[in-house]
Amino acid sequence: MDPVPTSAEPPRSSEDEAAAFFRAAPPLRDRDAVAASLDAFVARHSAGTGGGPVGVVCVTSGGTTVPLEQRCVRYIDNFSSGQRGAASTEYFLKAGYAVIFIHRRGSKQPYCRFLPEDSFLDVFELGEGSEIQVPESHTTVVKTAISSYRKAIDEGLLLKLPFTTIFEYLQLLQLVSTAMNCLGHHGMFYFAAAVSDFYVPWESMAKHKIESAGGPLNMQLSQVPKMLFILRKHWAPKAFCVSFKLETDPDILLHKAEMALRKYGMNVVVANELANYKDVVVMVTSSGRKTVRRQSKEDDIEEQLIDLLVKMHSDNITQSHSDQET
Amino acid sequence: MDPVPTSAEPPRSSEDEAAAFFRAAPPLRDRDAVAASLDAFVARHSAGTGGGPVGVVCVTSGGTTVPLEQRCVRYIDNFSSGQRGAASTEYFLKAGYAVIFIHRRGSKQPYCRFLPEDSFLDVFELGEGSEIQVPESHTTVVKTAISSYRKAIDEGLLLKLPFTTIFEYLQLLQLVSTAMNCLGHHGMFYFAAAVSDFYVPWESMAKHKIESAGGPLNMQLSQVPKMLFILRKHWAPKAFCVSFKLETDPDILLHKAEMALRKYGMNVVVANELANYKDVVVMVTSSGRKTVRRQSKEDDIEEQLIDLLVKMHSDNITQSHSDQET
Repeated sequence: MDPVPTSAEPPRSSEDEAAAFFRAAPPLRDRDAVAASLDAFVARHSAGTGGGPVGVVCVTSGGTTVPLEQRCVRYIDNFSSGQRGAASTEYFLKAGYAVIFIHRRGSKQPYCRFLPEDSFLDVFELGEGSEIQVPESHTTVVKTAISSYRKAIDEGLLLKLPFTTIFEYLQLLQLVSTAMNCLGHHGMFYFAAAVSDFYVPWESMAKHKIESAGGPLNMQLSQVPKMLFILRKHWAPKAFCVSFKLETDPDILLHKAEMALRKYGMNVVVANELANYKDVVVMVTSSGRKTVRRQSKEDDIEEQLIDLLVKMHSDNITQSHSDQET
Repeated sequence: MDPVPTSAEPPRSSEDEAAAFFRAAPPLRDRDAVAASLDAFVARHSAGTGGGPVGVVCVTSGGTTVPLEQRCVRYIDNFSSGQRGAASTEYFLKAGYAVIFIHRRGSKQPYCRFLPEDSFLDVFELGEGSEIQVPESHTTVVKTAISSYRKAIDEGLLLKLPFTTIFEYLQLLQLVSTAMNCLGHHGMFYFAAAVSDFYVPWESMAKHKIESAGGPLNMQLSQVPKMLFILRKHWAPKAFCVSFKLETDPDILLHKAEMALRKYGMNVVVANELANYKDVVVMVTSSGRKTVRRQSKEDDIEEQLIDLLVKMHSDNITQSHSDQET
């Protein structure tokens, strides 16, 4: 469970690339307000406050977009419902964590997973006295959702930060991780978001909607800097880091997961295949691999996954205390 | 209000392009079930059934996606919340139309516009006896939404057909328009969807997730065939057609709207600018232009727009009856 050591200096160009990315990106709106809410949240949940949460986890969820025009009409998107991130957030909260939920606007939200996608109003009806009702078949699920959600909000255990573009996402990630750095080993990151690998740098972008006057359209995209590297090295070096590797080709999945573990110094890489990501995942660590399968279609695989990660995180915290004492 | 005549033969390549597109596209799932539900809907609402709707309108809404890989992880999307299409559907229903709502999965739905995007559960709470309640401030809006929605569904006036990709969208459009052809001039099309101009033909598409191993990514996209041309010429030649032109550059907007009116033989092109599409639109017809502005931020501009279109459609039906008699 120890992270693969990244004592070697990252290639200079990674840090330069990251700096160049942030310099050129359109600035996050309400940056100061976000930073202030983060500082307050982290301060409230810092280790040492008796009865407080067991840890703080930053869960990222949903896909980032790559705008193709500055006044954005078209963009490249990553398929990601946010199901994994939303379900995991519910189980982290259940396990006693405080959660910072960096999510794609419009993606699945914690406790809303029962909602049919396009038929919100099918869940409700008006009773005889025109009061709002939920049919018997839905009642328990809806009530549990409302009360769990309210509890998380009222106890100040859930902070939701939305993004849409790759620019917003990476700026949020930088703000959150630098705010969480003071938590040391008590902080955890759970990178379930589908982050764009390629993008159009802001200055290279067409100002207005690209014309479809005639002929094919050619596009050249640049690589997005690998920010996990920078996070692990500079922003929050002691945090427990869990990333995901999603592939459509099962033959390359585990190889890519092992490579990501080493390359970015992650504590755990959760490998999953698009075809069956709800049914099975493989947790890859420096100690080996563990396959997790859900028992039935009614279960959430995230229940087992988060249970195992919480234990690993706890062991890692204990180990770090021993390391300090020796 | 007469459509600009398209008696000239379309360039042969348009029909060939369209045919090639459909031959190569992955087939729509449940095509037969969709076709059957369409035939039943149209038959139920055909002109002549006393007390029936004043007409049938097909409203298209939301953006289409262009998959970049066959086992789709990445895709190009068009920014479109579906707000215009959803609001317009509510006003068409209010005006007595039956509506076929071809919409992007996950986009704004009729009567759900009050829902805060990411905070569905903020709208509800549990009362003292654990019954589900809506805070006073929201009650009227939620109840109106539920009852209006129920009415449309119970009276069989709203048929919802979802799409995600450009392939699904154009196949649905073809099915719907050929089913509506029997309505002649009583049918209307309201093309509010943001349809991709460029796409990757299915056979050219990478089978698996495109690797981000190294260096920039180059993409070449083909033009999507102009299906409005084919719809106006072959699928539903007598229908009243309203299309939208959205631009980010106000200097070219009206010129492009006039060109679209002529090129595709539309009855009306609604021109709007991304920066202020909720506040002002310009209706462009062969008789001239009409600017529509909303009176206040509480109003929906769609209320006036649909009111004007319903009158234009009605005049068009009357005119077509006179034409037949002379």
